[in-house]
Amino acid sequence: GLGRFGIYYQEGAANETTIESRFRLIVTATAESDNGLTFGAQVRYQANEHADGYSARTGAFNTPRFWVSTGPFTVSVGNTLGAIENMPNMYTGSIGLTGLGYANVVYNFGADAYTSGSTGRQGIDVIYSSGNWGVHLTYSPDQTTQNTGLTDTNERIAGAVSYTMGNYTFAVGAQSSDVVGDTDFAVTIGGSWGNLDAALQYADNGANDDKYGVAFNYQVGSATFIRGYVNQDNNPAVDDTNAGIGFQHRLGGGTFIEGGVADLAGTTRADLGLRFSF
Amino acid sequence: GLGRFGIYYQEGAANETTIESRFRLIVTATAESDNGLTFGAQVRYQANEHADGYSARTGAFNTPRFWVSTGPFTVSVGNTLGAIENMPNMYTGSIGLTGLGYANVVYNFGADAYTSGSTGRQGIDVIYSSGNWGVHLTYSPDQTTQNTGLTDTNERIAGAVSYTMGNYTFAVGAQSSDVVGDTDFAVTIGGSWGNLDAALQYADNGANDDKYGVAFNYQVGSATFIRGYVNQDNNPAVDDTNAGIGFQHRLGGGTFIEGGVADLAGTTRADLGLRFSF
Amino acid sequence: GLGRFGIYYQEGAANETTIESRFRLIVTATAESDNGLTFGAQVRYQANEHADGYSARTGAFNTPRFWVSTGPFTVSVGNTLGAIENMPNMYTGSIGLTGLGYANVVYNFGADAYTSGSTGRQGIDVIYSSGNWGVHLTYSPDQTTQNTGLTDTNERIAGAVSYTMGNYTFAVGAQSSDVVGDTDFAVTIGGSWGNLDAALQYADNGANDDKYGVAFNYQVGSATFIRGYVNQDNNPAVDDTNAGIGFQHRLGGGTFIEGGVADLAGTTRADLGLRFSF
Repeated sequence: GLGRFGIYYQEGAANETTIESRFRLIVTATAESDNGLTFGAQVRYQANEHADGYSARTGAFNTPRFWVSTGPFTVSVGNTLGAIENMPNMYTGSIGLTGLGYANVVYNFGADAYTSGSTGRQGIDVIYSSGNWGVHLTYSPDQTTQNTGLTDTNERIAGAVSYTMGNYTFAVGAQSSDVVGDTDFAVTIGGSWGNLDAALQYADNGANDDKYGVAFNYQVGSATFIRGYVNQDNNPAVDDTNAGIGFQHRLGGGTFIEGGVADLAGTTRADLGLRFSF
Repeated sequence: GLGRFGIYYQEGAANETTIESRFRLIVTATAESDNGLTFGAQVRYQANEHADGYSARTGAFNTPRFWVSTGPFTVSVGNTLGAIENMPNMYTGSIGLTGLGYANVVYNFGADAYTSGSTGRQGIDVIYSSGNWGVHLTYSPDQTTQNTGLTDTNERIAGAVSYTMGNYTFAVGAQSSDVVGDTDFAVTIGGSWGNLDAALQYADNGANDDKYGVAFNYQVGSATFIRGYVNQDNNPAVDDTNAGIGFQHRLGGGTFIEGGVADLAGTTRADLGLRFSF
Repeated sequence: GLGRFGIYYQEGAANETTIESRFRLIVTATAESDNGLTFGAQVRYQANEHADGYSARTGAFNTPRFWVSTGPFTVSVGNTLGAIENMPNMYTGSIGLTGLGYANVVYNFGADAYTSGSTGRQGIDVIYSSGNWGVHLTYSPDQTTQNTGLTDTNERIAGAVSYTMGNYTFAVGAQSSDVVGDTDFAVTIGGSWGNLDAALQYADNGANDDKYGVAFNYQVGSATFIRGYVNQDNNPAVDDTNAGIGFQHRLGGGTFIEGGVADLAGTTRADLGLRFSF
């Protein structure tokens, strides 16, 4: 799990400066059969301190995920992971204590994505990972056919393939969805040169047009990292540039100081705080 | 706890075939006094994946149960266990991944019963277990007298006695309740012959008439079991026969493949999936 | 955490005698940085068995608290601890299994206080504790400025200082609040003589006038304690005397028998039961 707390600023919000915190508790259970199958299940409890919205004010568990894995294969049922969400380098450029809106993520969450603080969507993931190759397929049915109580009638099928060659990792993803603003296609290319990791990111978000940019992670000292991104979102409702820069200083033992500042289509967000893993 | 997932089919339901899963986390705390009393408390978190109903969509803990035990005696307060629910052989014949409606249980849940995924009823159990004898008394008051917020005015008192003689176990239970459709009386007789366990089950469910049948559990291989039941429910609203058969294959390490098919008063249910314990 | 169960009586209540129980599970996570900072986070799950009110019927986690500490300093963010709530000897005289309404607490909860079973208030505590001295400052902003969903517009700042000299501990607290009935000022003096601990307690509760009294804790045997209090509450809505007496017998291994009886402004409350810590 993790704990984090600090100060969060969002220009133009009803309350621009607020105390930010999050507590996440991860409960994982596993068992192994005699023939080497690994069975697993996980739920996550997450409380955004006192906050409405993403999770209820008094906190809540998300919906569980189950899996069976053997060798390079994993089949996961329940809270969907998402093939496009999990493409290598999709999250390169994530900054600050909170992600500051995660405008660095070019697919704009127009696909299935696992979430620690909400119900997510019920579906199935099939993952193959071996050597330089990775393959991830995701299917989530019309939620109203599943006795889930969810009213989302969208049906999605998505796949992604990645390949690592020397210092470079290439990934391509595609999706079929009933929603016109969902992502149709995404590409990432990441490279690594000494202390610098950088990535090119592109997504065709259907009726929301395309979004593309560059992101980096640079180690400036033994325990200090600078991260940032610049991208262009051609979504007609946005049609603007996003940019952000942030730092992470590692205090050891899984403890961090993190902060950042970002310009999301002209609106400033900033944060600063402490985080630890457990 | 346990995790399970698979496919569930129910004839005539709004969505006949659905993805089935359940995650159960059991939190047990105990302490022991210097004079040998064991104090315990338990809550269970259960999420039927994304599903409404039995537990809320985002999952929930049930209400806690507390106990003190010494030697053969246990006194339990809180979420009621239920004397008739816990009679030996009452659940013989339970099949499949999900129980497929548990039509094998002849008392038709017309008595107090512990549940992992709901509030249950608040009451007291007194249990004595020694050698061949078992005694279980349950009392649950009118719930509206307990500041519980529950609106169930039923008051129940029930008792069961069981005795094991050689390969046979006999059990008799009786209950006084304010609800006319609750169980008045139940009898089970179980026997064991090599790889076969079988049971006769009878319950007089008051205004819902009686229900009786036979159930078995047969070990066909080193790790494979066949289970089944046939019974007649004379409840005027049912007046039909229930039957089911299922298998369990043990993969070792607390992992299982389970499936079954049942005919509940003419309606077919079936399931198949994986389960593991942790 | 803790478990407790027993019988609770409250004169004049809709249901005077009820089954009482509580289950509390404390989840604490910590990490330590290389330079010796301790990071922590805690949530508590509490279920008053089946009961509405203090916590929801199906139980719930409270809101989390986060902290960083180094040497004598601790900074805590989130669910506020409360400087006046945590003054030494403020809780001396607490009796029985349940506290029987905690009428022994003279500040009448007119200040920020941590609670295991509710959302509490979001704020910041700064604590210094070294040798004979203790200092505790608490600030909680208008909750509507924090995107918390809470509607409480009160803003509080409070501080308390304590000093221990030989067998005596002196503590003084003061608070500024927007609510006229909140506590302005509190003083406690505690002393210890062999088997007897006793305390004088005083609070000026603003528009609710003052409340003062005496409380004690006396060890009568190797494992048995008698506790009690008498105080006068000049709150115009009360204008009466509270008194109570209770016992605790320790069974070893963190298990207890506890009970008490109290007169709260003319209304009798009593309880008796078992408690254990884990």
